[in-house]
Amino acid sequence: MAAEIPTWERLERLIEQGDRLAVGLFLEELETGERVLALSRLEEDARARLIDLLSSEDAADALGLLPASQAAETLADLSASRAAEVLTELPSSQRADLLGELPDDGAERILAAMDGEAAGVLRALRAYSDEEAGGLMTTELVALPVGAKVSDVVGGLRERADAIQDLAVQYVYLVDQGRLAGVLPLRELLLASGERLARDVMIASPLRVFDDATVDELISFFDEHAFLGVPVVDREDRLLGVVYRGALEEARRHRANRDLHRLQGIPVEELRSMPVALRSRRRLAWLSGNIVLNILAASVIAAFEETLSRVIVLAVFLPIVSDMSGCSGNQAVAVSMRELSLGLVRPSEVLRVWGQELAVGLRNGVALGLLIAAGAWLWQGNLWLGAVVGAALSVNTLVAVSVGGCLPLLCHRWGLDPAIASGPVLTTVTDMSGFFLVLGLATMVLPHLS
Amino acid sequence: MAAEIPTWERLERLIEQGDRLAVGLFLEELETGERVLALSRLEEDARARLIDLLSSEDAADALGLLPASQAAETLADLSASRAAEVLTELPSSQRADLLGELPDDGAERILAAMDGEAAGVLRALRAYSDEEAGGLMTTELVALPVGAKVSDVVGGLRERADAIQDLAVQYVYLVDQGRLAGVLPLRELLLASGERLARDVMIASPLRVFDDATVDELISFFDEHAFLGVPVVDREDRLLGVVYRGALEEARRHRANRDLHRLQGIPVEELRSMPVALRSRRRLAWLSGNIVLNILAASVIAAFEETLSRVIVLAVFLPIVSDMSGCSGNQAVAVSMRELSLGLVRPSEVLRVWGQELAVGLRNGVALGLLIAAGAWLWQGNLWLGAVVGAALSVNTLVAVSVGGCLPLLCHRWGLDPAIASGPVLTTVTDMSGFFLVLGLATMVLPHLS
Repeated sequence: MAAEIPTWERLERLIEQGDRLAVGLFLEELETGERVLALSRLEEDARARLIDLLSSEDAADALGLLPASQAAETLADLSASRAAEVLTELPSSQRADLLGELPDDGAERILAAMDGEAAGVLRALRAYSDEEAGGLMTTELVALPVGAKVSDVVGGLRERADAIQDLAVQYVYLVDQGRLAGVLPLRELLLASGERLARDVMIASPLRVFDDATVDELISFFDEHAFLGVPVVDREDRLLGVVYRGALEEARRHRANRDLHRLQGIPVEELRSMPVALRSRRRLAWLSGNIVLNILAASVIAAFEETLSRVIVLAVFLPIVSDMSGCSGNQAVAVSMRELSLGLVRPSEVLRVWGQELAVGLRNGVALGLLIAAGAWLWQGNLWLGAVVGAALSVNTLVAVSVGGCLPLLCHRWGLDPAIASGPVLTTVTDMSGFFLVLGLATMVLPHLS
Repeated sequence: MAAEIPTWERLERLIEQGDRLAVGLFLEELETGERVLALSRLEEDARARLIDLLSSEDAADALGLLPASQAAETLADLSASRAAEVLTELPSSQRADLLGELPDDGAERILAAMDGEAAGVLRALRAYSDEEAGGLMTTELVALPVGAKVSDVVGGLRERADAIQDLAVQYVYLVDQGRLAGVLPLRELLLASGERLARDVMIASPLRVFDDATVDELISFFDEHAFLGVPVVDREDRLLGVVYRGALEEARRHRANRDLHRLQGIPVEELRSMPVALRSRRRLAWLSGNIVLNILAASVIAAFEETLSRVIVLAVFLPIVSDMSGCSGNQAVAVSMRELSLGLVRPSEVLRVWGQELAVGLRNGVALGLLIAAGAWLWQGNLWLGAVVGAALSVNTLVAVSVGGCLPLLCHRWGLDPAIASGPVLTTVTDMSGFFLVLGLATMVLPHLS
């Protein structure tokens, strides 16, 4: 099979030959997944040369397929004027995101090569974080004077037909000296007679958000209102852009991924194409924090060395008790996170949640405790040993569900990220109390064990 | 402060008094978060009485705010005719979802009370899972004959203005004897002259999906095409409905949450308002599978009881080595999952990923190993002990990143859910190999340790 040569190597050869036409055709014929893979696997300089070879539009499409960090890297390798050209072909929100990935001087170099007005807009967009309305909005919109007739509005749309063809324009905005006066959904426009005034057909004083509205505020806005997009204004009520539902969904997904990654100790988004030293350093930063917590937990075992040396089999049960409790605690964390996100519990209702977790923890603790007690007894023929590990697991299950259930609520109240704070703290607490319970109880009944 | 009485108790009193107007006003004045909380906290029978008191439309809104399991429970408590009334006020996709939460006889009872045609459509929708296009589509759409003039199409829309006002209609579909012939985006319709034929303006042979298209297929469809919605057809090309981007996003979020919950041992979506016995049983089912894996891992310790009894301090290092390796493995899992979801790695590229993980694992393993070795040496004053635990942690870090990096790819190839399969397997493997390495190495150099 000729397909033995990976796609990206074939692409690389075409780039070396510098054949614009062949490169364009080759990319066009790949299906999207294959295209993403080939583009991301190119060496950094080959990728920059590819972007140079393609038409600005195709180049922008290609950049859009890459992870933001790779796309920004490529952009930085281009000449300023070429980078500006390609950037201009991207939708406004992506444009600012991509510039945001670059260091300040790299971004400024490209902005300087752009048309003055476009650069101004982009500089303003770049000042927004991607966690607020200004950073999520698109600035491509159709705004017409509020005094126009419906037929003028339709005419205005027809004039811009080419420009808006690629955009997800769903509303026409009506402005009065730059200030947002009303919204006309395309559907309304279609249904209204041409002779009427836009002012009479439009939704007057439409709902709007400020440019510094947070993702959370936007989420509740879109949860409450079945709109496809919401206009963004500044404090003077000047229309700046539109946040579409889709952009918010993406921000939300992005945030969920980032939280999950932080929880797993990948603080910044890692790609395996990044340098080994960087990847290693980033992962180590998290691991070295974790090892401190681990040593803290293990120090409990050290304190009971004497007991352990006399009943060595206890060492077998230590990880079982601590791991199982960790699992029970994680279940409680999951339910609390879900109820918080659905709005079914308030962060202040710690006692309520605690009570509900204790009810389940009591049943599960007893069940798991009996199971492990029976196992220990059968294996070692010592009922006291069974009682010790069974009681330890039962009680530690209660500890774990209490901490796991309540901690997300407390984190929420204290303004900490519940997902991040719950993981390591939960594990450390359940480890420590698990070790302490097994070894402490064993110490109390030591004569019966050895 | 009068607000000492929780909102739901005040609501409950109003429901008891049976004052429709007061209940309606009270709910209307609550902000959404407060409303969700109050509704979800009502006793089951009070909630059913509330839904009875409200207008059908308000009742449908209220049901829509509740988690699906609670909404279905409430629906089941209503009379069949009332349930049918309220259900009819919901959008078609929610209607089917809600019925899907009910047992077959409960759903049939309500369907029997509905209008024959509506019930037929709903029965058909209910047959779809919520993981396929048929289960995600909305059946409210505007379909007009392909022979119509543009002005007729606009007229057709005007006629249905009331019906489509609440809907997110973005396209008009043109059908030829029930078969999908073309699509007219509202924008095109607005820009086209009234005299032209729909046939000449429409997008002919538009892209479409079959009713059994999976969520994954839909995701790649919407990733590839910037559409707001896609028509759904059966194998005879008959137009059945439209899947909108928003519905897919919701399905995707739903699935991500479900996966995360499964990973944390919450197999079905738990609410704390569910009976304790049910919650306990569901959580226990997962925990009891986990305890088997835990016992398996701990059995390694049991095999080295002799060594452990002579160097009791090793017990302190067992959980440190196994936990730290688990963390390193989780980091590798996170990066693999991310790269898989971005399409930057193919499931077949196990060797490539393995190599990239070994490069990072080698550095981090050595760094962490030296750290723990130094700690052990300083604490116990025994260089051999430091060497044993340091070497064990180094090697086990390599094991962990190898398993963590490759397992998601292998799961993908074998058709297993990577998120589910990676967690418990990874932990069990890193625990076992961690215990084995610490105790095995210690056994080899035992004379130097005791």
